[in-house]
Parts: sequence; structure tokens; C-alpha cells
Amino acid sequence: MAHIELGNDLPGIRGLLSYRPQTGRHLNQLAEVLLRSDDSSLSRGDRELIATYVSYLNDCFFCQNVHGSFAGYYLNCSMTEIDGIKNDFITSSVSPKLKSLLAIASSVQRSGKNVTPEQIAFAKSMDATDREIHDTVLIAAAFCMFNRYVDGLNTWAPADRQVYIDRAPTRAEEGYVDRNL
Amino acid sequence: MAHIELGNDLPGIRGLLSYRPQTGRHLNQLAEVLLRSDDSSLSRGDRELIATYVSYLNDCFFCQNVHGSFAGYYLNCSMTEIDGIKNDFITSSVSPKLKSLLAIASSVQRSGKNVTPEQIAFAKSMDATDREIHDTVLIAAAFCMFNRYVDGLNTWAPADRQVYIDRAPTRAEEGYVDRNL
Repeated sequence: MAHIELGNDLPGIRGLLSYRPQTGRHLNQLAEVLLRSDDSSLSRGDRELIATYVSYLNDCFFCQNVHGSFAGYYLNCSMTEIDGIKNDFITSSVSPKLKSLLAIASSVQRSGKNVTPEQIAFAKSMDATDREIHDTVLIAAAFCMFNRYVDGLNTWAPADRQVYIDRAPTRAEEGYVDRNL
Repeated sequence: MAHIELGNDLPGIRGLLSYRPQTGRHLNQLAEVLLRSDDSSLSRGDRELIATYVSYLNDCFFCQNVHGSFAGYYLNCSMTEIDGIKNDFITSSVSPKLKSLLAIASSVQRSGKNVTPEQIAFAKSMDATDREIHDTVLIAAAFCMFNRYVDGLNTWAPADRQVYIDRAPTRAEEGYVDRNL
């Protein structure tokens, strides 16, 4: 049960967005630009994978399954494959550039100060652009917010991971803006 | 020097907001609602103090001085007094209710899962409302994002703390929306 009375029975962040639409609106718009905008050279799947990995590191069950399902949908791979990447992206089949960005995201998850010049230089040597590095840092930072919001208020989440997988195609196409507000 | 070429010499998050206005717009609007909206029963000073405290825990020099100066401006107290609260809010002169909210913010800074039912019950016994608890958790979570964004891209910040104090009255009145975009 959530720490506060939300007045709805929506799971995870959806219950919070509906409880407080004044902030929910901007959180949704931020997610839309970060994860779905067409002006990024990182694919939607790659961006959702960065969000999933940070949510995994923050141990946020709701977020890692919602975004893991989206990543699987966009990248056309199974939840088992997504789990494999979360557990060890280094030896996974993701591209060298995305590996270098996941390493930066992993540092951001602990602290912004943990990002090293060497990590940045390595990402650039893997052809990551400044804009891709920027977006990786902001996606990782944003999920340090979303994960804390979801778990800090003790929201509920469906325990059956198949629920997230089944909903992903429809929700991924709907996008984040104005959902449930 | 920032990890990426921002194309401007603005300090801290301002350089990032200007670099990427598509996301900056929503980040500013989120800060405006969270920290300055008139529909909150937490004062602007109390909300800036929560932001300051989390930024202090995250060791983000730019954010703790910007928002510490705002808190001092609104609460009519010196930076020395703000520093004292950051160092030990328990024995400070802030209200018992705000102390109970700062304790929740401190848990959120480490992980959303660190917030305990006992902390929530104690805050409620200090007359904190559900909405105040919600906003405290989201402010704390949001500054875990802002701090990581600022430090994860290695932005520069004025070293002289007086700069932040001198600018606070004007900037606090201007608000966060559309600044530098």
C-alpha cells in the first residue's frame, strides 16, 4: 500500500502522475522527449535500455519491467535477453557504442561525480556524439528521480512480469504524454 | 570544463538547459511547480531547503549554493545558518514538521526504498499532509536528477559563494520558467 492516499488504484508512477497532475504533466513530457522524440540519434530501444538498466541498478521493480518491456518491444528481443543485458551488458550483444554509454549511465546512477573523463573519451572513440552523451546522462539522472519517486512513496506494481510484456506494444505506441492525467 | 561542448559559458544546469532546450523546458517547468507554485502548503523557503539539503547530501556544489541562497532569501536567514541546517538539521531551529520531512528526503537521497513506514507515520504525527509528503519525496527525487545532471556532465560553477547570495533575490523572483531558453 502506498505511503499516502492516492485516490486511485493505478500501479507505479501512474498512480502518482494521476494524484498530482500539476507535476505529472511535466514528468510525462520530459519522458516523452528523452525516450521517444524523433530528434535523437539514439534509437527508442537504446534509450529505453539505458532507462531499464538504471532502474535495475536502483532495484525499482515497476520501472525496470515497464521500460524493459518497451526496450524488448523496440529492439525485438525477449525479456530473457533484456535480463541478460541488465546482468552483464559487457559481454552482451549490444553495440560497442551503447556499451560505452551504459557504462556512463552506471556511473551516473551512483553519483554524477563518478563519470570519468576516461569514460567520456572512450564513448567518443566509439563514435558517441556529445548529444548522445548528454542524453545518456540525463536519461540516467531522470531515472534516478523516477525510481525514487515510485519506491519512495511505496507504490504497488503487478508482480507478474508477463503483464508488462503484454501491455508494451500498445503503451509504447501511445507514448508518455497526457496518459492518465 | 564540461565533458561535452555546450556552446555557451553559462554555469551549472543553466548551460545544460540552454544546450538542450527541448528537455530544459520541461525541467524548468517541473522546478517551477515543485518549488514555486502557490498551491503548496509548504513555503517556498521550506521547499528550497529540502532541495538544498538533498543537493548537499549529493555533494553538488552548484545546486546546494543556488538553492541554499534561495532558501536563505525566502527564510530570511544567512548562508551560515543554512550551512548549519545542512550539517545538522535535527538540532536546528527548523520546525518539527520540516525536520520530519527532511528525514524523509534524506532517505530518498539514498534510495526510495529507504523511506520507512515509521518515517511517514512520524511526519503525519507532526501534521504533515499526504500532499506535503508527496512533494517532499518528489523534490528529493528531482534533485537526485538535477544534481547528477549537473555533475555528470562536469559543468563549471562559480567558486565564490557570495555570487550565489548576491543573485538570489533577483533570480528567486524571476522564477524558473523559460530562463535562458
